[in-house]
Amino acid sequence: MLRPDQIVTGARLSARDPGYCAASLDCGVLMLPESTAEVSTICSHANAAGIGLVPHGGLTGLVEGTASHPGQVAISIERMARVLRIDPDQRIAVVEAGTVLQDVIDAAADHGLMPGLDIPSRGSARIGGLLSTNAGGIRVLRYGMARQNVLGLEAVLANGEVLDAMNCLQKNNAGFDLKHLFIGAEGTLGIITRAVIALVPRPRETRVALVAAERFEDLAKLLGAARSRFDSQLLSFEVMWPEYYRHTTAQAGFGLLPLAADHPIYAILETGHWHPEPGDCPLTEFLGGAFEEGQIIDATVAQNEAQRSAIWRAREDGDSIEGHFGACIDYDIGMELSAMPAYVARLRARIAHTAPEHPPFFYGHIGDGNLHVTFGLPPERLAARALFDDAVYGSLDGVGATTVSAEHGIGEEKRAVLPLSRDATYLSVMAQLKACLDPKGIMNPGKVFPR
Amino acid sequence: MLRPDQIVTGARLSARDPGYCAASLDCGVLMLPESTAEVSTICSHANAAGIGLVPHGGLTGLVEGTASHPGQVAISIERMARVLRIDPDQRIAVVEAGTVLQDVIDAAADHGLMPGLDIPSRGSARIGGLLSTNAGGIRVLRYGMARQNVLGLEAVLANGEVLDAMNCLQKNNAGFDLKHLFIGAEGTLGIITRAVIALVPRPRETRVALVAAERFEDLAKLLGAARSRFDSQLLSFEVMWPEYYRHTTAQAGFGLLPLAADHPIYAILETGHWHPEPGDCPLTEFLGGAFEEGQIIDATVAQNEAQRSAIWRAREDGDSIEGHFGACIDYDIGMELSAMPAYVARLRARIAHTAPEHPPFFYGHIGDGNLHVTFGLPPERLAARALFDDAVYGSLDGVGATTVSAEHGIGEEKRAVLPLSRDATYLSVMAQLKACLDPKGIMNPGKVFPR
Repeated sequence: MLRPDQIVTGARLSARDPGYCAASLDCGVLMLPESTAEVSTICSHANAAGIGLVPHGGLTGLVEGTASHPGQVAISIERMARVLRIDPDQRIAVVEAGTVLQDVIDAAADHGLMPGLDIPSRGSARIGGLLSTNAGGIRVLRYGMARQNVLGLEAVLANGEVLDAMNCLQKNNAGFDLKHLFIGAEGTLGIITRAVIALVPRPRETRVALVAAERFEDLAKLLGAARSRFDSQLLSFEVMWPEYYRHTTAQAGFGLLPLAADHPIYAILETGHWHPEPGDCPLTEFLGGAFEEGQIIDATVAQNEAQRSAIWRAREDGDSIEGHFGACIDYDIGMELSAMPAYVARLRARIAHTAPEHPPFFYGHIGDGNLHVTFGLPPERLAARALFDDAVYGSLDGVGATTVSAEHGIGEEKRAVLPLSRDATYLSVMAQLKACLDPKGIMNPGKVFPR
Repeated sequence: MLRPDQIVTGARLSARDPGYCAASLDCGVLMLPESTAEVSTICSHANAAGIGLVPHGGLTGLVEGTASHPGQVAISIERMARVLRIDPDQRIAVVEAGTVLQDVIDAAADHGLMPGLDIPSRGSARIGGLLSTNAGGIRVLRYGMARQNVLGLEAVLANGEVLDAMNCLQKNNAGFDLKHLFIGAEGTLGIITRAVIALVPRPRETRVALVAAERFEDLAKLLGAARSRFDSQLLSFEVMWPEYYRHTTAQAGFGLLPLAADHPIYAILETGHWHPEPGDCPLTEFLGGAFEEGQIIDATVAQNEAQRSAIWRAREDGDSIEGHFGACIDYDIGMELSAMPAYVARLRARIAHTAPEHPPFFYGHIGDGNLHVTFGLPPERLAARALFDDAVYGSLDGVGATTVSAEHGIGEEKRAVLPLSRDATYLSVMAQLKACLDPKGIMNPGKVFPR
């Protein structure tokens, strides 16, 4: 039985922040279980009664995956937020699913370790949500998506049964690896309650550079050269088109520009150094060569933490688009690197024609083929979303291998366009799995599956 | 319709090598499809008729996963063995599932790349089997299991439908990532027909050392130090207990011993160097330090290809145990590193008591917590297998986190002991998935699931 303080309704509920999804709390009831057993009880009752459950983590998702509706119950894992164990020899962190990523980062840092996974919303995103959405982020190039950084997990199924897949061994081929069912399923197959997260050695130093180039193609070459030169030392390679850079660096309090705002395109490179030699800065040397070869036209390597923060802020402050315009629409499509510049040009042209007052902001993890597109607009224009959807997804036509979601997932927002990325057989197998594990459809109803 | 040469029976079948599983061809019928469409046709007919299908790859599996029985049909993917595309920019290889691993290695080498996955049976193991068993091998420490090295795949389902999950993007969160259902499922959920394999930069140089130590604990310390020193340059860390080393190095044609055979325990370290400096051998320097600190008592670093081969042959020639004794029983259990020495001592003592004429050979990938145990014995003693099972699995009692299979999988051989590693709920969800995707149970019947 939950205590009264674990069931939030009315004014107490209205006082809460719904996070990135305005409709998160629309169902009117939020439960705050404090243990796997309590999650299990909630699920089994909801299943018996046929009540939809909407799992909430840190509410930093971008695809309306936490939206709830009257008649449903939201269930937050925020009170299950303990780091249960850090094992530096095996390099694992065992955590409750409500643990905030930053807390895992802090706990691991005491042992010279860190999770490979890192995203800008590290201060509020919770492990259960990061795994449920198979989060990506700024170090996928080096460490992979959330999926690649988890050894095991525990999940509560729709009927309340607790699936123990808390593997902490590096290798385990004893039967199907069921954890993969729940990673990236966006809460539609069960609720993740605990996890075993892989840790990696924290670099003694990181070096961050911001570079500018004449053309995207030059940055693609620079990426290839950086991967050859730095291999596993290359942690991040992020690209910003100029509209985006100009916007984020123009925000109040940004301070001095790391590079002038009138270049055609920008990239951030971050390298990690586990055994740095004093005085050595291989990134500076590397970029010197790139400059001589004409791949870049300007560059700055951060010399202190303030400069480092400024460069990353230019990239991570995408929220300021919403802040500035009042609302925004985000896309996180994926395609092969070679297809990206033509796509950007095509979408720009299309928008210039159909909605010239809302030019797209482009940025992304190009090392992973992931392009983010954001439109800033006043809230009343959100109703015109279809116009932007048509432009973004329509411009994918003929591009070759693409995805409508490289990392954000599907949620409610992209249900209609999922068939652009998956064929009928694929969707049918997804639906069969859903029916198998959640026959009454109580787990995050209305998410992921096309309407 | 298959041509007559694609259906092998009678004398033509008897002439074929059944591989590592004597019962592979016992069903009496082997089909050799040449395309996904032909695999699909076979599956849909078998499904309609309720005939069990046993998928065959390179037949290098060690757990009777390819055993077939009268009334079933074996289906080999050996004629679907083309490397379809190597893309050096995206670092992927697109292959048919019958492609032999060595052929992928060779095709990638032309571009300075290689698959991260490598196992001793690379010359005959096929990609479909490697993925279906989520193969491990000698570089898991660096690149992970087969699962971590695949971007996409195509699989034929029991009913003949073709699931297209041929993703070639680094990131794709468009719906469930269904490829994971088929990786490690040992052919019980479908037949993998194509795959997109991730490639990694081939090191310009590798350095291989064989070291000897007084105690396992010293090697565990050496592993920790090597991971700190070399991080992602450390490709392999393999341990051999002395019975194993003495056996493999005593085989005809082995030549000079890399190190004396009377040391208490041995390890092989392999490092990869992508930007080697001339004359530089960090491995020699590192081992010099380990010697001074007393972690190792002897060491040799290969100075040429012959010495390199000899060191790896000492590790990879496990087949010589079967060759010498006539038969063998293999185990590939997993546990935390700290538990390993006590486990080895306990199992040795138990066998000394119950079967002193068959002392265990121990070796393994200790960086991954994976311990291999092999017993050599005359074929007529195979009937006494239960005695060895009892000793190996019984000795896991109280060890903490363990697995009955770190990498080989379950097949027919370990069905009975799978419940030692997975609880009733876990097994029930596996069974539900099986019933969902293969309701008539035609896909590799009798494998994986406990009897």
